[in-house]
Amino acid sequence: MAVADSTDRGPSQRYVRGAARMKQIAGEDALATVEALEDIAPDLGRFVVEFAYGDVHARPGLDVRQRQLVTIGALAAAGDTAPQLRFHIGAALHVGLDAAQVVEALIHLVPFTGFPRTLNALAAARTVFEERGVRVEPVEVEPGGDRYARGEDKLREVDGEHGIEVIESLNDVAPDLGRYIVEFAFGDVYSRPGLDLRQRQLVTLGGLIALGDTAPQQKVHFNAALRVGLSPRQVIETVIQAVPYTGFPRALNAVGVVREVFKERGIRPA
Amino acid sequence: MAVADSTDRGPSQRYVRGAARMKQIAGEDALATVEALEDIAPDLGRFVVEFAYGDVHARPGLDVRQRQLVTIGALAAAGDTAPQLRFHIGAALHVGLDAAQVVEALIHLVPFTGFPRTLNALAAARTVFEERGVRVEPVEVEPGGDRYARGEDKLREVDGEHGIEVIESLNDVAPDLGRYIVEFAFGDVYSRPGLDLRQRQLVTLGGLIALGDTAPQQKVHFNAALRVGLSPRQVIETVIQAVPYTGFPRALNAVGVVREVFKERGIRPA
Amino acid sequence: MAVADSTDRGPSQRYVRGAARMKQIAGEDALATVEALEDIAPDLGRFVVEFAYGDVHARPGLDVRQRQLVTIGALAAAGDTAPQLRFHIGAALHVGLDAAQVVEALIHLVPFTGFPRTLNALAAARTVFEERGVRVEPVEVEPGGDRYARGEDKLREVDGEHGIEVIESLNDVAPDLGRYIVEFAFGDVYSRPGLDLRQRQLVTLGGLIALGDTAPQQKVHFNAALRVGLSPRQVIETVIQAVPYTGFPRALNAVGVVREVFKERGIRPA
Repeated sequence: MAVADSTDRGPSQRYVRGAARMKQIAGEDALATVEALEDIAPDLGRFVVEFAYGDVHARPGLDVRQRQLVTIGALAAAGDTAPQLRFHIGAALHVGLDAAQVVEALIHLVPFTGFPRTLNALAAARTVFEERGVRVEPVEVEPGGDRYARGEDKLREVDGEHGIEVIESLNDVAPDLGRYIVEFAFGDVYSRPGLDLRQRQLVTLGGLIALGDTAPQQKVHFNAALRVGLSPRQVIETVIQAVPYTGFPRALNAVGVVREVFKERGIRPA
Repeated sequence: MAVADSTDRGPSQRYVRGAARMKQIAGEDALATVEALEDIAPDLGRFVVEFAYGDVHARPGLDVRQRQLVTIGALAAAGDTAPQLRFHIGAALHVGLDAAQVVEALIHLVPFTGFPRTLNALAAARTVFEERGVRVEPVEVEPGGDRYARGEDKLREVDGEHGIEVIESLNDVAPDLGRYIVEFAFGDVYSRPGLDLRQRQLVTLGGLIALGDTAPQQKVHFNAALRVGLSPRQVIETVIQAVPYTGFPRALNAVGVVREVFKERGIRPA
Repeated sequence: MAVADSTDRGPSQRYVRGAARMKQIAGEDALATVEALEDIAPDLGRFVVEFAYGDVHARPGLDVRQRQLVTIGALAAAGDTAPQLRFHIGAALHVGLDAAQVVEALIHLVPFTGFPRTLNALAAARTVFEERGVRVEPVEVEPGGDRYARGEDKLREVDGEHGIEVIESLNDVAPDLGRYIVEFAFGDVYSRPGLDLRQRQLVTLGGLIALGDTAPQQKVHFNAALRVGLSPRQVIETVIQAVPYTGFPRALNAVGVVREVFKERGIRPA
């Protein structure tokens, strides 16, 4: 245990690191929401700075853009998080994701969370774009083609045999559900440009962790994250990045899934 | 796999079918929310039309009213879905459910989701009723009577022995919780007029799928759905109808429960 | 089964008891939200009074302040419950919790639900405080010290060996996650003044039950609740108190966990 690390490391160092990180991702006004807590819950504001940013966000392993993708996935999936989404979508733009990529991250969530979470998060995004005078150049994909074949290729690329097994396991009871996963989730959504597969898996994992009751899907998508090139360490960082937005129980359950995935792949985390 | 079905079926056919379905359930302005996405996420609007309506809502097996009951159950249970609830409550009225039935569907959810989700969904319903000048003739049931006996009869009618087992299993630790399920969930709520038992099971299943972490309750209520006369195919359609509102993970978990229920009942889905 | 109890106990007795309870916790205007349902869902209003208050809230075993802590925990964790939070935060003040304790209960939830649920609930609390002209004397804790050592002591006090095992089980895959639980959840949050450990466990359990998909964490924290001095009966009352805010499925799953905990501890509930 990194006990020595935590002792005598004064909170002010954590606070300084957290405040710097907040300004890095959200500009000079980044602490406004924290300062607004001064009157009734100053320590809560301090915990945001120290823990969510000083401890978690400032960690190595994932860069700021990657952390924003995980965060936006988790917040959008959780629902009832409009103020936090506005902050973190603003931060995503600030660290260099463009507006179309933010929109793309929200579209990417549809197969995992359904349309309502995406539509509501998009309303938050629109507010941010308007406030900042950001013009979106929307990604438009030519519809059609052989959606099933395209989806099957993409599914194999992302999930390997795990994904195919999920689809085939549906043939006895609900084959059309399997077909929709191939055609819609993979042929339509996963095949879109705008975000690469690593970025898509960061959004996916943020969303699945926040949703809860998704262990089988997390298993598929932690595997997929490794498959498309995220490192074991980055996979763990994804779980840690979700903590401030979903709490420890969701993260602990996700770690249980990660452990299983690592064991099956013979991965020993450093 | 219905691969042939999906190949060469141009998206425009799916779009046309979806747009027609939307107008069927929500009138000539049905695509307004989709068109409002044109500026920043046009493909998301297209996915709503093609997938949520062209693929899913337009499926046979459940009629439009039944699909609206599943949808309203899923949306109300998910929370943070007021704009979508307003659309789908409006659609429910448009396809011939009356306002009192919509209210009844929301009251029916209380035992499954608690009062807050119902109260918030009712606020959305009230907005729709007012905008449309719809007068609700509220269903008022004479209170009292032997609530336990009434509830036990209803529980047996809906859930058969599965339900009684759930209640009896509580006797060791929390017998009053079992009593409340009998008296309140079944004696008060399930015994109300306004919706028949098939309709109530559609709302129940929509709600349980959206909630997540409800596999044991889904097992009871998929069985109940079959018991009160929904066909195996309709049960599967309920799960598929929930996808656009809850995403695939919740639906996949529900299919796992359906599979178990079918196996125990010796049902082989076509 | 307490069948005799439920027969011939007219609903009007339950209504009278519920209305009295509502006025006890929320003052003379307590039924305003119920009365606002008269036009479209009068029976829903009746169910609130009879079931949520007459049956559940008026039960013995937990006092009114304890019930408000469970309720606030459940509502804040569920999300999309601002109107209900305003009512129940107002009620918490009415029954003698002070504003700083309400804030403390919301801060206590951060490790379980993440910051967004707490921040949104705090916005509801702020509205209530302003409407009532309540001045908060915020609890401010001197930051720093040996957070890990403090957290480890607190963890042992709250969770006994169960908690330590959870932390140690993370060493293989995500040791920093374990460290954050010790330092932040226990060293920072659980160690704060304002609420005692029994009160903190009531908030924790309300939150975990509402979240769903938290069985392992519920197991730790039902044990912790007993360890810090809540009785087996009070633990069960916590689950029952959550029902009106989370529905029966979440409560039934929690009872399954309670049963396991009781068995391991050799507790036979009366």
